[in-house]
Amino acid sequence: MINDNKAYAQREKYYMQGQMFPDVRVGMIKVNLTPTVTRDEDGKTHMQPNAPVLIYDTSGPYSDPDYKVDLKKGLPHMRAKWIADRAKKGQGITQLACAKAGIITPEMEYVAIRENMNCEALGIHSHITPEYVRQEVARGRAVIPANINHPESEPMIIGRNFAVKINTNIGNSATSSSIDEEVDKAVWSCKWGGDTLMDLSTGNNISETREWILRNCPVPVGTVPIYQALEKVDGKVEDLSWEVYRDTLIEQCEQGVDYFTIHAGIRRHNVHLADSRLCGIVSRGGSIMSKWCLLHDKESFLYEHFDDICDIVAKYDVALSLGDGLRPGCTADANDAAQFAELDTMGELVTRAWNKNVQAFIEGPGHVPMHKIRENMERQLEKCHEAPFYTLGPIVTDIAPGYDHITSAIGGAQIAWLGTAMLCYVTPKEHLALPNKDDVRAGIITYKIAAHAADLAKGHPGATIRDDALSKARFEFRWRDQFHLSLDPELALQYFTEAGHTDGEYCTMCGPNFCAAKLTHDLRRIKH
Amino acid sequence: MINDNKAYAQREKYYMQGQMFPDVRVGMIKVNLTPTVTRDEDGKTHMQPNAPVLIYDTSGPYSDPDYKVDLKKGLPHMRAKWIADRAKKGQGITQLACAKAGIITPEMEYVAIRENMNCEALGIHSHITPEYVRQEVARGRAVIPANINHPESEPMIIGRNFAVKINTNIGNSATSSSIDEEVDKAVWSCKWGGDTLMDLSTGNNISETREWILRNCPVPVGTVPIYQALEKVDGKVEDLSWEVYRDTLIEQCEQGVDYFTIHAGIRRHNVHLADSRLCGIVSRGGSIMSKWCLLHDKESFLYEHFDDICDIVAKYDVALSLGDGLRPGCTADANDAAQFAELDTMGELVTRAWNKNVQAFIEGPGHVPMHKIRENMERQLEKCHEAPFYTLGPIVTDIAPGYDHITSAIGGAQIAWLGTAMLCYVTPKEHLALPNKDDVRAGIITYKIAAHAADLAKGHPGATIRDDALSKARFEFRWRDQFHLSLDPELALQYFTEAGHTDGEYCTMCGPNFCAAKLTHDLRRIKH
Repeated sequence: MINDNKAYAQREKYYMQGQMFPDVRVGMIKVNLTPTVTRDEDGKTHMQPNAPVLIYDTSGPYSDPDYKVDLKKGLPHMRAKWIADRAKKGQGITQLACAKAGIITPEMEYVAIRENMNCEALGIHSHITPEYVRQEVARGRAVIPANINHPESEPMIIGRNFAVKINTNIGNSATSSSIDEEVDKAVWSCKWGGDTLMDLSTGNNISETREWILRNCPVPVGTVPIYQALEKVDGKVEDLSWEVYRDTLIEQCEQGVDYFTIHAGIRRHNVHLADSRLCGIVSRGGSIMSKWCLLHDKESFLYEHFDDICDIVAKYDVALSLGDGLRPGCTADANDAAQFAELDTMGELVTRAWNKNVQAFIEGPGHVPMHKIRENMERQLEKCHEAPFYTLGPIVTDIAPGYDHITSAIGGAQIAWLGTAMLCYVTPKEHLALPNKDDVRAGIITYKIAAHAADLAKGHPGATIRDDALSKARFEFRWRDQFHLSLDPELALQYFTEAGHTDGEYCTMCGPNFCAAKLTHDLRRIKH
Repeated sequence: MINDNKAYAQREKYYMQGQMFPDVRVGMIKVNLTPTVTRDEDGKTHMQPNAPVLIYDTSGPYSDPDYKVDLKKGLPHMRAKWIADRAKKGQGITQLACAKAGIITPEMEYVAIRENMNCEALGIHSHITPEYVRQEVARGRAVIPANINHPESEPMIIGRNFAVKINTNIGNSATSSSIDEEVDKAVWSCKWGGDTLMDLSTGNNISETREWILRNCPVPVGTVPIYQALEKVDGKVEDLSWEVYRDTLIEQCEQGVDYFTIHAGIRRHNVHLADSRLCGIVSRGGSIMSKWCLLHDKESFLYEHFDDICDIVAKYDVALSLGDGLRPGCTADANDAAQFAELDTMGELVTRAWNKNVQAFIEGPGHVPMHKIRENMERQLEKCHEAPFYTLGPIVTDIAPGYDHITSAIGGAQIAWLGTAMLCYVTPKEHLALPNKDDVRAGIITYKIAAHAADLAKGHPGATIRDDALSKARFEFRWRDQFHLSLDPELALQYFTEAGHTDGEYCTMCGPNFCAAKLTHDLRRIKH
């Protein structure tokens, strides 16, 4: 369903096997390249082969032509045996519990192979070994979100010493969208490169929508359980309670959700800190919990029952994403007292999660002008003990509704370079409407750019290979190779062919006489 | 021709008059906002007015409904009298000559007003006075490109202590595009916010195309004269000569081009430095001049005749944009010996230009991964004596053809924050084809975002006003105000209405029950 396009003719599905665990088979994309053709002074043609490039693939079985898609049946249970084996041994079943006990899980070897795919063939040293993965998980510096009831998902790792990941949001609201559309969007998100997927559905059929998504999703799925809890009490914030919330959590754990956004960082005495803001509270979960605290004049039940939450999710290895309910909603509100008070609370909560062997990471802003980004990252590392940071952008200026995938990718690239482990994508429709498929694609590619730019800047092992292979193809007019190596081969090919191009040694940008690449090739034939 | 859309109903053309020069009338856009409406506990409605916001306007007379567009007649000669007055006094006619002599020109007052438009009304202190402008121009730290033969252009300033500017490129090539299309693109570029415009036409009708553009362009126009010189010798690099080039320069000075990109920084002995590159030379002018040097085994005539060039352009106050012919064409080639050798030469040339009272700025890369951006800026400031830097992006990763407006805006925002004065836009079609009007619009808005993000980070006086007014409008569900304040009111309105929205207190993103802004308004009505 993904390889049915000539834009992908030189791409093939490829599997790399584990050495510790032979049933670890890491799916990736192999890009086969054409040879470099040169002509010497006598007009003789020489061919120099170009090594294939491996690409990190989030699309799971969907990009394997041998796999027959059947949405009703769902994806194969790739992790089922690993999960069963852990349960038999009677040890703590979370990745964190195993890591602390010195155990390397198959998931850990899986992510080590996945992070390093080009290194071995090219002789590039990488610090990322299965043992290194274990250490990072044990320290809480990395998370492998993998509910035991979501055996369909392919392991991936979120941590600042690994490749930067991106999350996509889908989900219907009361006023739009159907189940079919949402499942379709989930597969679409995986096709373009979403590393994790949050189902933010509200409105009707939340459970059913989620079930369909989970059974067909090869990447970890996150939710915000308070949304469903609120639907259960007919949208009346005052009627929310720990009991309703607890039952919702258990239901979603059973279904296989891999991580929960939980806004437990909002304390009763901190709510007023948002009063003086230009834009108040812009997190849905944050505004719900703040309202609950004020209506009942009580500490939030999420904070009060945080240890109970950890006890529940530890049984399923659901990771916690500590939601930033008081994140700034405009650049004017960035780095204010409300935001940082919540961050302090998150630092306390993450320690409590770790004590219960629960994997956890921290959500971050939002809207932050560039000169205030660094403080966010440094403070998060300090207050939250290096737990992975997962930010929404940040958006660096508020004047461009319709283009907030870009305003936020500018901030996202910077904060990821500084150490943010995962970026939550923003689509062009942010602040205006729900995204359609085109918006999801634009948001994902934009965020893949931000994440990869950060990988280059951080020196992630082998990160430059794809850039350099594409640059070489560009310089040598191997147009098809260039497109196959790109983040969006379809669009590159479309722009190229719409302009009436064939595969000649120039393009319409400059025409044949003004092509610098062509001139440089001439130049290299002139004796210096 | 620009205000014919309901997306602009609350915008009006507005002029601010000079105090030193009463015939200075700075055109800008006034955005009229609706009042904030609140309801108190008794259900009574209260209205609080919102002050109008002034917006920097690059569209010249085209956004004035009182102006009748006639492309055959061309734009009014706004600067004609100022230019005539300077000529009468017998002084050096360049802005730099005046500045050094302690003279504040009408152009200097014009740009001071333009940079500060919201400050006076809001009581914001700004360091930018006409005298400050004069000092910055005198030091060479800022440039006002303004050919005496382009009296149609509205003065603007390029320097790191002013708002970051953006340049757009248009121009046909041998294989596509007509004069009509190019003039249409020029006006289109000004509409969306291009601060300067480079006509990079090659192929047929270069002179005629340029004449039409100049007579109808309210922003400074730049060219790369070597392109036309090469057409004159039928595309044969070896036949280029100082004489052909000189005549081309004079012709373009006479027409009114405001700045020339001149690749005089390429020295014969440095050309070989690009041999080991992955992508060689990717500047058209750079590859032409390098080839010329090798074919003749001589120093480039641009370098040899640089003082002659300065003598010519000083007569017209054409500014020099020292072209980076050896800029890197991929991230792998960033910050290499070839690039930095050329930068050293540019430092020498800019001093020679200043000695001839010629305004000058320095072109920069190109393709640079994020961790190598800072070195570019710091080195440029040091080697080029703080002459304004004018960069093309930089693109921070090479894996996204079709999205290079975004890969480059990420780098552009960062380098502008660090001190780059003007960013040359990149469109989605970069590396693939010539941009059409949609691409020009996408490229401009993307670069306005990068430039404005840098203004916020640098603390440009009053830069936050537009963001904060838009954020307030967003929070108060004044949708129309939000769109009118945005960089692309048409697109924001389009996304909003396509989703079936009316002006209610929520949107389809969250629906009525999950709107955080709505909940916050509720919250503020609850006693804390």
